[in-house]
This record gives sequence, C-alpha cells and structure tokens, in this order.
Amino acid sequence: MSDGSPDPTERARGLQERYAQVRGFTDALSRPLSAEDCLLQSMPDASPTKWHLAHTTWFFETFVLGPLGEAPFDPSFGYLFNSYYHAVGPRHCRPRRGALSRPALEEVRGYRADVDRRVLACLERMVTGEGAELVGLIELGLQHEQQHQELILTDIKHAFGLSPMRPAYRAREGETSHAAHARRGRGEAASPLGWVEHPEGVCAMGHAGEGFAFDNEGPRHRAFLRGYQLADRLVTCGEYRAFMADGGYARPDLWLSDGWTAAQEGGWQAPLYWEKQGDDQVALTLDGLRGVDDAEPVCHVSLYEADAYARWAGARLPTEAEWEIAATALPSEGNFAEGGVLHPARATPAMRAPSGTERQMFGDAWEWTASAYLPYPGFRPWEGAIGEYNGKFMSGQMVLRGGSCVTPEAHIRPSYRNFFPPSTRWQFSGIRLARDA
Amino acid sequence: MSDGSPDPTERARGLQERYAQVRGFTDALSRPLSAEDCLLQSMPDASPTKWHLAHTTWFFETFVLGPLGEAPFDPSFGYLFNSYYHAVGPRHCRPRRGALSRPALEEVRGYRADVDRRVLACLERMVTGEGAELVGLIELGLQHEQQHQELILTDIKHAFGLSPMRPAYRAREGETSHAAHARRGRGEAASPLGWVEHPEGVCAMGHAGEGFAFDNEGPRHRAFLRGYQLADRLVTCGEYRAFMADGGYARPDLWLSDGWTAAQEGGWQAPLYWEKQGDDQVALTLDGLRGVDDAEPVCHVSLYEADAYARWAGARLPTEAEWEIAATALPSEGNFAEGGVLHPARATPAMRAPSGTERQMFGDAWEWTASAYLPYPGFRPWEGAIGEYNGKFMSGQMVLRGGSCVTPEAHIRPSYRNFFPPSTRWQFSGIRLARDA
Amino acid sequence: MSDGSPDPTERARGLQERYAQVRGFTDALSRPLSAEDCLLQSMPDASPTKWHLAHTTWFFETFVLGPLGEAPFDPSFGYLFNSYYHAVGPRHCRPRRGALSRPALEEVRGYRADVDRRVLACLERMVTGEGAELVGLIELGLQHEQQHQELILTDIKHAFGLSPMRPAYRAREGETSHAAHARRGRGEAASPLGWVEHPEGVCAMGHAGEGFAFDNEGPRHRAFLRGYQLADRLVTCGEYRAFMADGGYARPDLWLSDGWTAAQEGGWQAPLYWEKQGDDQVALTLDGLRGVDDAEPVCHVSLYEADAYARWAGARLPTEAEWEIAATALPSEGNFAEGGVLHPARATPAMRAPSGTERQMFGDAWEWTASAYLPYPGFRPWEGAIGEYNGKFMSGQMVLRGGSCVTPEAHIRPSYRNFFPPSTRWQFSGIRLARDA
Amino acid sequence: MSDGSPDPTERARGLQERYAQVRGFTDALSRPLSAEDCLLQSMPDASPTKWHLAHTTWFFETFVLGPLGEAPFDPSFGYLFNSYYHAVGPRHCRPRRGALSRPALEEVRGYRADVDRRVLACLERMVTGEGAELVGLIELGLQHEQQHQELILTDIKHAFGLSPMRPAYRAREGETSHAAHARRGRGEAASPLGWVEHPEGVCAMGHAGEGFAFDNEGPRHRAFLRGYQLADRLVTCGEYRAFMADGGYARPDLWLSDGWTAAQEGGWQAPLYWEKQGDDQVALTLDGLRGVDDAEPVCHVSLYEADAYARWAGARLPTEAEWEIAATALPSEGNFAEGGVLHPARATPAMRAPSGTERQMFGDAWEWTASAYLPYPGFRPWEGAIGEYNGKFMSGQMVLRGGSCVTPEAHIRPSYRNFFPPSTRWQFSGIRLARDA
Repeated sequence: MSDGSPDPTERARGLQERYAQVRGFTDALSRPLSAEDCLLQSMPDASPTKWHLAHTTWFFETFVLGPLGEAPFDPSFGYLFNSYYHAVGPRHCRPRRGALSRPALEEVRGYRADVDRRVLACLERMVTGEGAELVGLIELGLQHEQQHQELILTDIKHAFGLSPMRPAYRAREGETSHAAHARRGRGEAASPLGWVEHPEGVCAMGHAGEGFAFDNEGPRHRAFLRGYQLADRLVTCGEYRAFMADGGYARPDLWLSDGWTAAQEGGWQAPLYWEKQGDDQVALTLDGLRGVDDAEPVCHVSLYEADAYARWAGARLPTEAEWEIAATALPSEGNFAEGGVLHPARATPAMRAPSGTERQMFGDAWEWTASAYLPYPGFRPWEGAIGEYNGKFMSGQMVLRGGSCVTPEAHIRPSYRNFFPPSTRWQFSGIRLARDA
Repeated sequence: MSDGSPDPTERARGLQERYAQVRGFTDALSRPLSAEDCLLQSMPDASPTKWHLAHTTWFFETFVLGPLGEAPFDPSFGYLFNSYYHAVGPRHCRPRRGALSRPALEEVRGYRADVDRRVLACLERMVTGEGAELVGLIELGLQHEQQHQELILTDIKHAFGLSPMRPAYRAREGETSHAAHARRGRGEAASPLGWVEHPEGVCAMGHAGEGFAFDNEGPRHRAFLRGYQLADRLVTCGEYRAFMADGGYARPDLWLSDGWTAAQEGGWQAPLYWEKQGDDQVALTLDGLRGVDDAEPVCHVSLYEADAYARWAGARLPTEAEWEIAATALPSEGNFAEGGVLHPARATPAMRAPSGTERQMFGDAWEWTASAYLPYPGFRPWEGAIGEYNGKFMSGQMVLRGGSCVTPEAHIRPSYRNFFPPSTRWQFSGIRLARDA
Repeated sequence: MSDGSPDPTERARGLQERYAQVRGFTDALSRPLSAEDCLLQSMPDASPTKWHLAHTTWFFETFVLGPLGEAPFDPSFGYLFNSYYHAVGPRHCRPRRGALSRPALEEVRGYRADVDRRVLACLERMVTGEGAELVGLIELGLQHEQQHQELILTDIKHAFGLSPMRPAYRAREGETSHAAHARRGRGEAASPLGWVEHPEGVCAMGHAGEGFAFDNEGPRHRAFLRGYQLADRLVTCGEYRAFMADGGYARPDLWLSDGWTAAQEGGWQAPLYWEKQGDDQVALTLDGLRGVDDAEPVCHVSLYEADAYARWAGARLPTEAEWEIAATALPSEGNFAEGGVLHPARATPAMRAPSGTERQMFGDAWEWTASAYLPYPGFRPWEGAIGEYNGKFMSGQMVLRGGSCVTPEAHIRPSYRNFFPPSTRWQFSGIRLARDA
Repeated sequence: MSDGSPDPTERARGLQERYAQVRGFTDALSRPLSAEDCLLQSMPDASPTKWHLAHTTWFFETFVLGPLGEAPFDPSFGYLFNSYYHAVGPRHCRPRRGALSRPALEEVRGYRADVDRRVLACLERMVTGEGAELVGLIELGLQHEQQHQELILTDIKHAFGLSPMRPAYRAREGETSHAAHARRGRGEAASPLGWVEHPEGVCAMGHAGEGFAFDNEGPRHRAFLRGYQLADRLVTCGEYRAFMADGGYARPDLWLSDGWTAAQEGGWQAPLYWEKQGDDQVALTLDGLRGVDDAEPVCHVSLYEADAYARWAGARLPTEAEWEIAATALPSEGNFAEGGVLHPARATPAMRAPSGTERQMFGDAWEWTASAYLPYPGFRPWEGAIGEYNGKFMSGQMVLRGGSCVTPEAHIRPSYRNFFPPSTRWQFSGIRLARDA
C-alpha cells in the first residue's frame, strides 16, 4: 500500500492530529445512542454500533500494534472483532454480532481508549523513524474507520426502521420534527433537470498516485468512452413519485429480471423507509419520521430501482468511467457527514456549480453506476492480510460513486469506488441519469 | 377462573404482600444483568429479559387496570408487549423482540414501578370490596409472572450459550468457578437407582379444586392405570454418559423417527450446553462453564433424547397420569429457584424422601412424560381473552411435570402441567424412568 | 408378529389366492396412468406411483425372499426402494424419488412379475410346511401393499392437483364430467345430524387377538371413558361451507395456535382441492374437477380445520377410544376403494345403519380424532427390522380412524390406527363430531 | 431484429431446408431418452426435455404463427410453455415444469409436427413475399432452438447426475464404457501450455453486421485494450488436479469471497460430476461414468473455480474483449454437438491451429471470462416481446465465450455472448488463462 507521500516520518507527524480527530468523530457518532441501541443488529449485512466501535479498534491493534510486538488488550477480541480476514484467523459469525452483550459498551470504549493511547505513542515514535514502515497502515486504519462511520449511521437507521417505535437517531434541538418538516416544506422546488455533455475519446481513469487510495482504485489506465451526457443533478423524490404514479413498480418491462424478482419478493412499492400515513407519504430519517420532500434527491433505492427509473425516464445509468471523468473536473465538495445534515439535500441555486457542470456529484447520495465491481486492468491487491480488503469482493456487486450525506468528506475522492449488491437499499443510494450523446 | 377460595376481599388482603414479593423477585432476577444483556434474544422461542419484565407488567395493565378504567402507561406498549392474545389486538412479531432497544431498560423499570403502584392501590380498594371481582386476575398475573421468572433464567442461559464469551449469569462470590467445581467434584456418588411400585386401578387426577390452578389442570377426572413402577430419582449425568459411550447418539434403533431427524439436523452429540474441553466434558451453567458432575441429574435434553435414553435403559418415560398419582402423595419440596442453586442437584441421602418413595419429583429438572399435551376430558378454557392462555397450545407438545431448579417453588403443585415441543432443549428438562409392573 | 391364526400351512393356503388378488389390485390401480404420470412426485411426503409399485415389491423381496436365501432381482433396488428401514441399510432420499426415471416403469412391472412368481412359489412350498415360519411376513406384505394402494391414489391426486391441466385420474365412461356432476346435483339433501349416546365406564380397546393386526393396535387394554355422544354421520360440505361463510378461516379464536399459523402460512381458505370458478365452488376429484356437493362429506381437511370446525359447531373431535368403542359394535362396511367410487358419498337413507347408530364410521373419509398417536400401555414393537414399521413414528402425529373411499375394505377394522401430522390435507380426511354426554 | 441480409424472400428460401434440419436435430437429441427421462427436472434452473421440445415449438407458434393469425394448437400451451415473456402473458412456474406429466411426450411430438407443418407452409408463402416481414423471427426461432438443443443435453446430464443409477444418455455401440475408457487412457498427453501475444490498442468489437446475431452482441463499438496474452489451449483435467492436490479447495486466499462461500455451502471438492471410486477419480459423462482423462480440458467448473484456478496458476481469466479480439482472427471450428463426441476433447497435434495461435477457442468447453454480462455502449434491446430475450438478464451474470462440445456449430460466432451466474457448474464450462503482456 503506497500513497505516494515522500517521507514516512513526515506522514507520521501529519497523522497525529488526524488520528485523534477521526477516532473522536466515531465516538461522537455513537454518543446519541444508548448501550442498548449500540447492540442492535437488524440483519446479517448490518452490524451493531458497538461492533463497529470495536472492530475499527481491532484493525489498529491487529495491523499496527501487533506487528510492533504489543500484546492485545484482550486475547478474545481477535475472534470477536475480526470481520472477514481469513489470513488473520477464525472469527465470530457475522449474523450473530448482535448476540455480544459482553463485552459491554463501556468495556469497548475502554478498549478504544487503550488502543488510541498506544497508537498515538507509536505515532510519536514514528516521527523519530521508529516503526515508520507501518505508518501507511495507520492511514489505512483511518480510512477504514471512516467507512465504518458511515456504516454506523446506515446500520442504526436500518435497525430503527424495523422498530415499531421508529426512533430518531438524534433529538433535534429547538424545534419539533413536525415544525422542521413544515419549514422545509416551504422551500423552493428543484431546478429543472439539465444535461452536461462529455466528448468521445480515450480517457485515463483510476487513482493518479497522489494521496491515499485503496488498491481497487488503481492502476490508472485508459478506457475508450463514447460521447455521453450526465444529468446535472440527482433524481428527486418528486420525479420518483411520478415514476411510482405511472406504475413503475407494476411494470415488468421496466425492470431487470433479477430486479423484478427482488421487488416482488420484497414487496417493494417505494424506496426503503417510505411509508404511507393516511394519504401522506412519510419517510424515516435519522431525525425520525418526516414528510417526503419532493425537491430532495431520492435515496435508499436499489440498483434495480435506479435502473428501472432510468429506463422509464428514457435514459440510463452512467458507467463508472463516465462518472469519474466528469467528477475529476469538479471540486469534491457537498453535503457530507461532517455537515451534520445526515439526509440528502435539495439542489438549490445556492449550491449551484459553475454553469454547465454537474451538481451533487459528491455527497447527498451515492450514485449507482451501470458498472459491475471488477478489477481494473492490471489490478494487484495489496500484499498480505490487507489484500483481503477489496479484491475478494469483486463479484456480484455494482459500483457506486461520489459519497453520501453520511460519508465523511475527508474520505471521498473522484476515483473512490464503493460497491454493493444490486438489491441493496439501506445505504444512502440515489440516482443520476446518463444518456448517449 | 376460580381458585376455590371463599371470599374475594380476603383474597385481596392475602395478595398484597405476595404481589410485592413476586414482583420483587422478578426484579431481583434481572439485577445481575446489564441493559445490554437484557436485550438479547437468541432465538424466536426465547425472549429478552427486558421483554419479560415489560410483558408481565402489560399483563396486569391489560387484564386488571384496563377493566378498571385506568389509562395505559404508554399506548404503544400494548402493541410491543402483547405476547399472543389475538383477542387483545395486534402485536410485535415474536422473533424481533430483540430489536426493541427502545423503550430502554430503565423506562421498562419505570413502567413496572408505575403499574405496581397502581395494582397495589387496586388491591387496597379490593379489600373494601371495590373491584374485587378482578382479584382472581391479579392472582393469575402473579402465576403468569412466576412462569416468566423461569423463562428469564432459561432464556438468558440460552443467549449466553451462544456467546463465544460464555458469560456467567452471576458472579460467584468468595470462590472461583474452578474451585467451586473442584469442591463439588469431591462429593459422593449418586445412590443406586431404585423403583417405586404403583398398583393398577381407576385413579382420579387433575386439580382438586383448592387454591389456584390453570384451566388446563382440570377438570378432575378418572383414568385407568395399569400397575407401574417409577424410578426413585432422576437419571444422572453419569448414567447419561454411559448411554453416550454406548453409541446412544449413533443408533437410530433407539430413537423416534422425528427424534433421529432432529438429532441429525441439530448435530446433537450430548445434552445442550455440554462441550468438550480437551478430554474434559464441561457444561455451561448459570455460574459459567463447569465440569460435568456425574452424580447430578442430567438436564437440557429433549423429549427425543429422554425417550431414546429410556429405550436404551430398557425402560420408558412415565405418562403424566402415572407421574401425578405418584406425586400427589409427596410433599412439593425440592431444589427450586428461591434456593438460588439454579442447577439440578444430586440426590443425596440428606434429601432422601421417606423410604420407598420417589425423590426429586419436584424441582431440579422438569420431567418429560410420554403424554402429549391435550385437553383433559371435559376441559373448558377460561372465558374471554385469558382463554388463550393454555388451550390453544394443545397441539404438537409434550407434557413435563414437577418443576425445575429455576421454577419458583410457590408456583408448583402435583397437577401442574408444563408443555413444550419434543425437540426442546433449552428448558431445564431431565429424565425419570418408568416401567410396567 | 402374530395374527392369532392356528396353523401356518393353512394360512399359507389361504394366502395364495389373496396374494394374487391384492397384488393385482395394485396393478389395476396403476393402469389408468402413463409412465410419465407414474413418475410424478409432488412433495417429499408423496411418492411416485412407480415407486409405490417397486417399494411394495421390495418389501416382499427383502422380508420374505431374502431370508429364504433368494438373490435380489437387481442389487441396486435395495437402495432405491427401501423406504425408511435403517436396519435394512441406506436408502435413496425420499424427496428425490421422482428423479428415478430409471428403472423404467416397464422394468418395475417386470420386477413385480418376477417377485410375484417367486413369492407364489414360496407359498406353494409353505403349504407343505417349508419356510412356513415366514407366512406372517407375507400377510404383512399384503397389508403393507394395501396401505400403498391408498397412497397411490392420494399421491397421484395431489400431483394432479398441482398441474395446471387438472387431469382426471380416470376418464369416466358413458357420461361427461359435467353431466355426472349435474346428475349428482339433483340428489337429495343430507339427513339432519343426529347424536348417538355412549355411557361412562371402563372399556377394553385395542386389537382383540383374532386375525391380522399391526403392532400399534395392541395390546388390548382398559381405558376409562366418560359418557359421550358421537354424531351419526360425517360433517358435510354444506355444513363446512356455513363455517367458511361465518368467517371460519378468519377467526383465530376458533383455532389451535399451530393451526392458525399453518392456515396463514398455507393461505388456507377452504379444504384442499377446492377452488373458485367464477361464483362456483369446484373441487378436484379423481374424476377431474366437479362442483362441490353440499350433501357429501367434506374431506381433505387437516386436523386443525377439523378441530376449528368442531369448536365453531359447539362440539369437539372424538378420542380414538370413543371412536373405537362405538365402531366395534358396527359392521365394517362402507364406501371403500373396491367399490370404485373413489370419493366420499352422501349419507343417504339407503345406507342408513340400524336406527340410533352411527353411519359412515367406515369408509368415505378418515376421521380425525383428538388423540395423539402414542403407544398403548404395554406396547411392544415387533422384533427385528419390521419393528420400525410403526413404533418409531409415535411422535407429532394424530390418529385417524375408519378408512376412506380409497382404502381397501379388506384392510380396515375397528382397532385400525392411521396417523398423520395435524397439518396433513392430502389424505381423504374428514370430520365426525363428538360431545360430552 | 436485423441480420443484415438483403432480401426477406431470399432468406425465406434459404430457411426452408435449415428449418427442417434444426428442428430434426432437436428431435434426434431426444430420441435416446424415454418418456420418463424426458420428464425429469433436477433443479429450477434446468428443464425437462419434454418442456424444451414444447417451449421451442411454442416460440414459433407465438412469434410467427400467432401474428399471422393462426389459432394455437392447444390454448393451454401458451401458459404451460412460455418461459419468461411477461409481455406474452402469465406462465407456469419454472420450478414445477417437471410436474407436467400431461401433455404426454407423444402429444408434444404431435405439437411439434403440427407447428412444423404450418411454419414450413408459412415459409413457402414467404418465398412469394407473403408475410415475409416475419422471416427474421423464424431465424430467431431457429437460433433459440439451438440454444435449447444445448440445454437438453446439459439438463439431462444434470438429472442423470442426481440419479443413484448414474445412467448414460446414450448407449455406446460396439464397445463397453470400460473398454472405451481404457482406449482413451492410452492417448498422448496434452501439449505444454503456450501463450499467444496480443498488442495494446483501441479495438472494435461486437457483431459486425453480417448474418444473424442477438441484440446483446451489438452494437459494434470500440474498447481500449492493454497488451495481453492468451493461453493457447484450455486448462486440462491434469492441471486442475494439480490445483486440487495443492489444496485449491481449502485455501480461501485463492478465492473470491462469494466463491468461497459457494464452495463451502456446496461442499465443492472437485468439478461437478467428478466422484471418487476407491482411489480412482471418475466423472459422469453423457456416455456414463468414466475415468477422468488428464489430457482433456476440465469442464463443469464455476466461474469461482475458474477464477481460483487462474489465481493459483499466477494468471487470470480473459475479459470478453480480449477473447473476442483473439477469436475473430480464427476459424469458428471445433468439437461441437454435431460431431457427436459430446465431451471436451484433448488438444492433440492433429487439431493444432496455425502455429502461434490459440486452439480450442471454439467448442469443447465454454470459457469463463472476467467480464460481467452488461450492455454494450449504445445497446438497444429488440422491440416488442422479444426484447425480453437478452436485455433483462444483464445483472448478476458473467460472460462465457466460444461454445462447447454440446453447442451446435452452426450457432456460434466470435461475437457470441453466453452468460450464467458465477456459481453455475452444470454447463460445459471450462478455463482459458490470460495474463498481462
């Protein structure tokens, strides 16, 4: 794993503050939750908050402290908090992570504090050159932690979505949920959908070699692209409701065959978290149930729904190459986790990008692409156990790009490849349209 | 529901102290557990401790406070904490009781306190005759609560059994688990198995009309019994290990067909909670992992295992009639929950019953019978919603008798019928042999 | 296995004609079916006709010819056509019996002819005393074959019920299905339901020792019965439709809990094989689809439906003891397979039993009882492999009595115990009501 | 659907002989099978031979005869034999195709004859121009039929593979299976693996517009390829056994994560159809069980096994672009269904391609590629119901190229895209290695 930086000791110095900040943000995300909340596991694909808190810590302990000869905080944690690293050893089965009432949340917080103390001490020594060959793994641990920050939010939302209580992740201060909703409802409509043109040609894509990147973002390579257009904003809830009103969930001709099956078996009639309250369409957010806002980007749709919507709209989903070429020219700014909105926001004039460019490419909602998650030409996984990080999942998944309202801004870049099975709905996944030039 | 007592106001007076005591015992049972522990649900058949705490409270609120016109503590609790009463309304689905991080454990404790206050006030008024027609439902609520006291212990044991941490329900004071085990290991062997003879004849069985009984214990009726013998103690772990050593789990000729299938599919090779540690056979107890004590009664076996063991031993299981006729002559004493052992104990000389009678008929371990759980001749369920308490479950289950080491002593009587599907293992269920005279 | 007959050589003489007749009836039952029909397996519990033809033959080969030292027709057949006899050896898995396109039907017919020839030769020799100790196993083989005759009909009906073609098992000659239906529709109504009184007392039940009986019918033993009444005919389709019209399938208070679950999961809204054609209620019969005849007995209901119906009707199901005591006094006559109707028939005045006695106790439809299938007091299974015939299935099933329109008349007797899980519907199972005196 | 041919009447003339020939080949493939064999359905993904015979006929009836105003042979067949065309109407559920004992095989043969007669009459009229706009659909019907010819063979092999009898699809004439095996065993070894070099550049791929092609083969488009090498023959059984001997099925580091899960859940230890007989490795072929020949290409491996093998061998699988660029330069010749071998054959010197080119690119075994089955840039499905032919399946599947020993030679071309889920093993799927230049 190389991130192109010149000097490990310099990198170690840079990481000291960042380590504390990233780890602290994880703790902050868990603060609105009780110990009971932190134990919830709603499905095998989601994990309890407590497990995320411990697993990210285990990552530093295993890949940084271990090689430095440090004893583990608790020898049993290696078994409990390994996610999927065969090379590291056996592990607790994923669907039963919610069965771990012990260790208690407070014990896990103690585990975090202990590992933090020791990693910071390592960083201190690395600044002097001692053990500096592991500095890249600390960086990787932080990137890994940021991924789990997003999962903490998506997973607790899913757990709360299954509770008849429909709890809010956080209490909003100073106004009731209803008042907030009303206020937002007074807002302006979304601007009409425009298209941004991109020419044909051989393009270079993949991480360019500066700063951190995962192995799956490289190597940089060439691809031939036909001319294409990208929509200049995400598809809105209002547009999606027009699809629904037009029988979008009842017309098999609009759907991929697997998607139609998934929709029938899952009883899908709307995006995940939408429900009817009398005549109103409401949706669970991290602030609780709220009316659906037609001007906001739709999210919590599967690839299958995104694809069906695009077909209905006479368009298609972009490939990841098309997306990346367009994104590289834009600043990686947007509605991210740090901003605290934690829900996709409208494409308002205020956030308008330079005329004739795409808005909302970063943040708000992950954008499903038409590309399967496969290795780039010449791909090589990292050496050793961390080689299991990405490569072995290159099967059966589709690429999403751009990050969402619950992704840390510091985590995203144009070459970033997220990936989920096409039926996935509990991520903040939305739709950007594309079409041939 | 009638329990044969003469005067409701007098009964109300008698219930005041008992109410506080029973409810307090439930609270005491939950005290060694953290809020996280109290949320665990290991399988659809088991419930979280928190749910037990709330559901037993809901029972009083629904069947006593509701008819007296009292408003519910929280209107949503009726949905969350109804178990299976169709007549009361819809309910949260059973397998997802572990998803209820909200209401928090502390909120549920508040719910308990609030309902306790109000029920005690009702009892106060009942002493003066006001609302005294509901006194029987308070008694029923306490009996119901006692059943859930046992389930709190069986369910948390099951949850802990699935945790790689194998936690103990309670920390033992003053000695280590290892020391305690060693001390017990010094004990004497179980006395040789003897047989108690019972003559042929028409017998009367079923609740005789004094004190509380569930509807399924009546009506009292006659049955014809051939002469039979009952073993004078429970089957021990040592005896069961002889069965295992003789290929008990590998010989289909010893098993009922359904039992053989269950054993193969479940990979059964020993009672539930037994595991190998090197050459040692250890078992999870509520005090943590311990060596198996050959002199103690075997428990956590299914009806299928009990039946296979009996066939191997050249005997059979008793019918519930045979058991009840024998038990009626004996005092309802034994190793029950109040004693705090929480594990079956050896049949020692000290606990020996009068010569020529059965020991361990009450407490230690529920005794599987050869009788299906079916209505007695002339059975009538209670009127109204509480008619769903027992009658609708008279299908696919087998009767167990006598209570166990986690049953409240105050809850048991000779006519008491417990019932579980024949594959059930997480209850404290053991084996008493019978044979024809 | 003893059937009480005095002299084996005499029994052998009596079996010669009977062997040919019983085996020939099986062949006759398979004649309306094509080789393709004979391969159908609609569910794990049902078997292809071809498999029945072969398995019944394997039974004679294994338990009669084998012990006499005869080589098997084909060594692979022991594996293919053993049903569930662990003591005989491993076997083809039950749910995949429909995968056996080889051996071909014609080959199986050849197998039958070969074994028939050899068994008849054995019988010839047994008349002279040679090998006569096995004559009881030939009798058992014929009883076994008769059970499979019924299954051939119930299983092919089930297979045809799943075909969109809804084929008829046999073409009716001389009239169209529609005409036949119309003719039956002109018939008289069922006579009003009457009740037959039976007194309280200690009764003897179980096989009395003359003629063949299965091990599970004995030993004869005493039981105490309270006074009771039995309905004097089966419940009719018309009565069952009144239950349906009164919301019978929508009221959980009428159902056992397991039954309610089964009904919801199975989407039960009517007996099996009933379907709506516009406003008409039609049902699949072995003669194809026909209108439901209100005067005929209802059949293809589960124990759960029978129990719910009885509760709705203010009655209950009889126990097997109650049924047997009543049946023993009546002639074992009725609408059986030999008569060729192959569907339950109306209780007409013509078939009326002596005044004040029950009609339809034998034939028409198996009668669900309230009794679990359990061993009688003192039960001993047969010695050897045939001990697996009945005893190991004494778990999770309910007793049915009296035979049906597809049971061979020669097979039935008052002590006969049939047994199926309570959710079973594909047998010709109906309802007789009982109530306390 | 356009196949680039100039004149429909001319095409109609050319199709007359071809129609008879293709349809006749299907019949010929079904001839070694009994009516019982033709009913077997071993899994939802496979269909009975009879169903293939009927469905291919339904295709002509629905898409050619129907639009020409002809009445259906039997109105119920539309429901029974529609595969997945929502636009055509509802259909019998796929997993229950084996339940259709009716219509009988002979009836289906009559259906084929009737439709053949009518289609040939249509072709006769098309030569004169009448209805000639449908000639393309007849061509499509023949291409469709050829696909089902392959499925007839793969599906019956799978069904026979589940039978304990392990039947052969056809009896070999003039020599026993054992003798044939011995003879093959005397053969020469496979030639050493060589590599063929291909340069970097922008290449054109996709169907070039002459002759028939499916919609998914176009449009022709450009792609950028890095320099690469392809192996000059398929991976052999001997090579694959070396992978097995090296723990290939026991090392998770070699596998995609989904593949590892599939292998564990499926208990994979070797290619499908391989089994141990004592120390010998034998495999089911369409000629019955035979010893595995180390010099033959391995087949019946999933994408996951192919991928793991490639990783173990220090190589990778080719993309479909890499494969197509190489294949376009080669003649589409090889070991196909018409040759009657029906099993992959060795890469012998006799079949050696021009020096320095790939052998076995066509026929023998489908070659898994590293490409997901996705639309080409600019892809448009056909108009109308036949638009459901390919496009809706572009999810969750991987592309295979080149045809196999059971593919009709007349059906294959360099641009042909086959596709199956990555866990698929019952197709004749093998492995060609690739690596970066």
